[in-house]
Amino acid sequence: MTTDMDIALSAELDPIVDIAAGLGLDAKDIIPHGWTKAKVPIDVLDRASETATDGKLILVTAMSPTPAGEGKTTTSIGLADGLNELARSKPEVGKAVLALREPSMGPVFGMKGGAAGGGYAQVVPMEDINLHFTGDFAAIAAANNLAATMLDNHIHFGNDLDVDPRRIHLRRVVDLNDRALRGVVVGLGGLNGGVPREDAFDIVVASEVMAVFCLSTSLADLKERLGRIVLAHSRSREPITVADIGAAGAMTALLRNALAPNLVQSLEHSPAFIHGGPFANIAHGCNSLLATKAGLALGDWVVTEAGFGADLGAEKFLDIKCRTAGIWPSAAVVVATLRALKYHGGVDVKDVNSPDVSAVLEGMSNLELHCRNLREIYGLTPVVCFNRFPTDTDEEMAAAISHLDGLGVAAVESTHWADGGKGAIALADAVVEAAGGAPEDPAASAKYSYELDLPLEEKVRTIAQRIYQAKDVDLPTKVKRKLKQFTEEGYGDAPVCIAKTQYSLSTDGSLRGAPTDHIIEVKDVRLSAGAGFIVVIAGDIMTMPGLPREPSALKIDVTEDGNITGLF
Amino acid sequence: MTTDMDIALSAELDPIVDIAAGLGLDAKDIIPHGWTKAKVPIDVLDRASETATDGKLILVTAMSPTPAGEGKTTTSIGLADGLNELARSKPEVGKAVLALREPSMGPVFGMKGGAAGGGYAQVVPMEDINLHFTGDFAAIAAANNLAATMLDNHIHFGNDLDVDPRRIHLRRVVDLNDRALRGVVVGLGGLNGGVPREDAFDIVVASEVMAVFCLSTSLADLKERLGRIVLAHSRSREPITVADIGAAGAMTALLRNALAPNLVQSLEHSPAFIHGGPFANIAHGCNSLLATKAGLALGDWVVTEAGFGADLGAEKFLDIKCRTAGIWPSAAVVVATLRALKYHGGVDVKDVNSPDVSAVLEGMSNLELHCRNLREIYGLTPVVCFNRFPTDTDEEMAAAISHLDGLGVAAVESTHWADGGKGAIALADAVVEAAGGAPEDPAASAKYSYELDLPLEEKVRTIAQRIYQAKDVDLPTKVKRKLKQFTEEGYGDAPVCIAKTQYSLSTDGSLRGAPTDHIIEVKDVRLSAGAGFIVVIAGDIMTMPGLPREPSALKIDVTEDGNITGLF
Repeated sequence: MTTDMDIALSAELDPIVDIAAGLGLDAKDIIPHGWTKAKVPIDVLDRASETATDGKLILVTAMSPTPAGEGKTTTSIGLADGLNELARSKPEVGKAVLALREPSMGPVFGMKGGAAGGGYAQVVPMEDINLHFTGDFAAIAAANNLAATMLDNHIHFGNDLDVDPRRIHLRRVVDLNDRALRGVVVGLGGLNGGVPREDAFDIVVASEVMAVFCLSTSLADLKERLGRIVLAHSRSREPITVADIGAAGAMTALLRNALAPNLVQSLEHSPAFIHGGPFANIAHGCNSLLATKAGLALGDWVVTEAGFGADLGAEKFLDIKCRTAGIWPSAAVVVATLRALKYHGGVDVKDVNSPDVSAVLEGMSNLELHCRNLREIYGLTPVVCFNRFPTDTDEEMAAAISHLDGLGVAAVESTHWADGGKGAIALADAVVEAAGGAPEDPAASAKYSYELDLPLEEKVRTIAQRIYQAKDVDLPTKVKRKLKQFTEEGYGDAPVCIAKTQYSLSTDGSLRGAPTDHIIEVKDVRLSAGAGFIVVIAGDIMTMPGLPREPSALKIDVTEDGNITGLF
Repeated sequence: MTTDMDIALSAELDPIVDIAAGLGLDAKDIIPHGWTKAKVPIDVLDRASETATDGKLILVTAMSPTPAGEGKTTTSIGLADGLNELARSKPEVGKAVLALREPSMGPVFGMKGGAAGGGYAQVVPMEDINLHFTGDFAAIAAANNLAATMLDNHIHFGNDLDVDPRRIHLRRVVDLNDRALRGVVVGLGGLNGGVPREDAFDIVVASEVMAVFCLSTSLADLKERLGRIVLAHSRSREPITVADIGAAGAMTALLRNALAPNLVQSLEHSPAFIHGGPFANIAHGCNSLLATKAGLALGDWVVTEAGFGADLGAEKFLDIKCRTAGIWPSAAVVVATLRALKYHGGVDVKDVNSPDVSAVLEGMSNLELHCRNLREIYGLTPVVCFNRFPTDTDEEMAAAISHLDGLGVAAVESTHWADGGKGAIALADAVVEAAGGAPEDPAASAKYSYELDLPLEEKVRTIAQRIYQAKDVDLPTKVKRKLKQFTEEGYGDAPVCIAKTQYSLSTDGSLRGAPTDHIIEVKDVRLSAGAGFIVVIAGDIMTMPGLPREPSALKIDVTEDGNITGLF
């Protein structure tokens, strides 16, 4: 069987200077990392932004995901390749650029293997992208952990700020799945080991530093945001920030080079900015703002994705990232699969490969709600993309597409996984048409699901009722008290970042389809003062994944001639 | 005052392709990391080695260091620049190349600031070299920590290998000084948090993975060595290796790109391979073997340094690294300062800037012993280099040099810190002369301080008596039992890597000069099966440094236009 890795390794990559040249960048404008990866400096992007007319932004989101996998990254890559393929016959279409998240090494060595697309819709060099890439995550981890050691060092040397060791919020991070670090005690070993306290490690993508990194517009903005991160509270309940312990400058120095977006290419040589990767639950779940802006300045189309389903990823992308940045998409692609429809129609995950037209139609409730939200709440034209799997039947596909036609929702099937950009021409056509109906300056007509001047609690309720179809939200007294405190501390105008299961529109992962009348139970709220949002925790949030019994790391190897194998 | 950083930032760097071209490398032969850093792939080096006549290797070592600092890296850089300066008038001298260690970020944010030379003898871009560089240390940390999480995961999922959680040797690492991680408990938080056990973190440079990385000759050798690392023992006292838990392939994949040596330049454009950086106490303390070999294949001279004084750094460089690699230096530079001589002559560290000829002569005992060891034990011609400080007087300098003249030891003063390569012409001349007396194939006449077929205990005794002038070694029963066990397990032929204080030839850091009749007390021994040596711990070894009360991180910042400040 030909694996993703076989396809990726047999690809002929263009030199990255050629990819950059296609975007109007001079060789000297970029910072090469090898011959097929580069960083594009922020000042180069600033210069390009000043003169360029912004490209059109296309958000790739999805119906509620299933354990079977829908292929959102693969579809994003397929769409960009499809648009560029289309432009070969219709040059007026222009150039499409990708803006994607960097993979975390946790899933690479855990369950998921690589995260750089699949089949003939991949970004390359996939083995580098999946392992270290240009070192951004290592830089983010170092910056985070520098703050942690400086804070503990401050406590060790007398604790002038009166840090309450029971109220430390910043956790150390690694970019691996490491279950044993979920709960730890640090500071043991007597006088020379610092001050003992309970602690925990997170995976780097769950850190606030990662969220800050992805929302920063410049080095100065980065430093300011880092400085605002609340590391701890004092015994008198005063917030203690990164700026208070004097770490913002050194953390910015550690992140200086990393903040420039990374440029690579798809198998079909579409330019791809792959940069940043915050968790889609505890944070906002999309690539860095600078990468998106890079795409907008340098391309005619920017295809970008947001984590999980539209209830989580698209909501945060639109309400947090686009609002922060003053950008707005011209259309939204909703990735769906017949398998996911059958799953949401009640079929067991092990049976989703068997044909079942009625289950396909039964599962439409989920897909329809996501499309309706995008259209009615955000004013975006949705284009449903069925990512074709080998087990899909033509009869099921026809039924699904005709059902959506009946609702006035554009729907296409796409075979980019098997056929690359040529397989995504229909998708590209549909996207061009949908975007053609968008206003000339989409950001001017942006519509959010909630306004920032609502009280924090009302923002959560509004999302729950408008997006999740919930009856109400339930906030324990402790949570209400914390929201009141955040408001008093001046964070009442912040957007909210809801962390809940991705498998359901409710907070119960087993409720498929489009549940109604459910209650969103909020368990905790946390301030991300640097990122500039309030994290609302509705369900169990995993900020440090574990390895499975048979981790993928066991299969990863290096051949005699230096090729990496087993990244599938 | 002009700082090191001011000098480094105002330097005009040559494009790294030009530096590579000066070594006979084609632009396509190197892997650029930005425009002034590159990695040189191992296959390119292998090709070069096959055709090239090896250059001459010059070891830069030192008298016993003092808290005032002697400038060994600065002198190494000055010497390479001096040799290349000399070659301008005498082309037959040929091309000098540096092989140095990468700085750890621990000291950068702790006490030391940068570690890329000083004054007009620096390697650049210093801010990149000091922070992340090309990501090698992050890769080493990830590889190490992957093994750690796979081991804990194995225990969590049933522990088929019967790992004794009290006998786990591998520690997780970070590349920061983090006192609070010196002693920790991991695996807390109940069933989902793994199995609780005591643990500790080390700084990445203290890891065996770092030592393995620096001694490996190829990817295949790296994988084999990684596989041999003993992570733990089972309850029945069987060794459990990286290979046993199936981590060697994935760790090698993580290190694949990192293993290629990094190429940068000095302020005067001398090529510099800066790669790897194991601690000089717990490990062998010199740059990667591949970097040294790169220099030998591509340069006429390779200037390399070994950590701490000649008793530690040079001994391990010669007895471990050179023996492993089949290489040998043509001469050894012993870096000394008048300040260090005064310190070893009994002057308090705060007074070493005051002129004191008799203290200078009094402190000679230390310098002389290091020189004698190099000459009599290893058959190397020492060249003493006085790294001139502004407070040194001509009278002191004349006294020191004339004293060494009287002993037949070549000694020069050198002003590379203030004057760059032009200030090191005398040093370069002396080195060329010393190396001229070395055999054509120095490796063929290598002399070690001990033979590998001696029993492990005798190896330690031999070093102690021959190099440290000790009366004897004292090995507790526990240590003797472990040495016996290592011998039974097949490691009896391994070299020993002694970890002791760098401040004295004895194990008592306060004993200056050249103490005699002292006893080397061995506290513990550890097997580094992957690196291929036995670590002998004679004194307190710090494998996780702490930050000082006012860490240098407080002074590090980034300006509006993106320049890093405060790295001095």
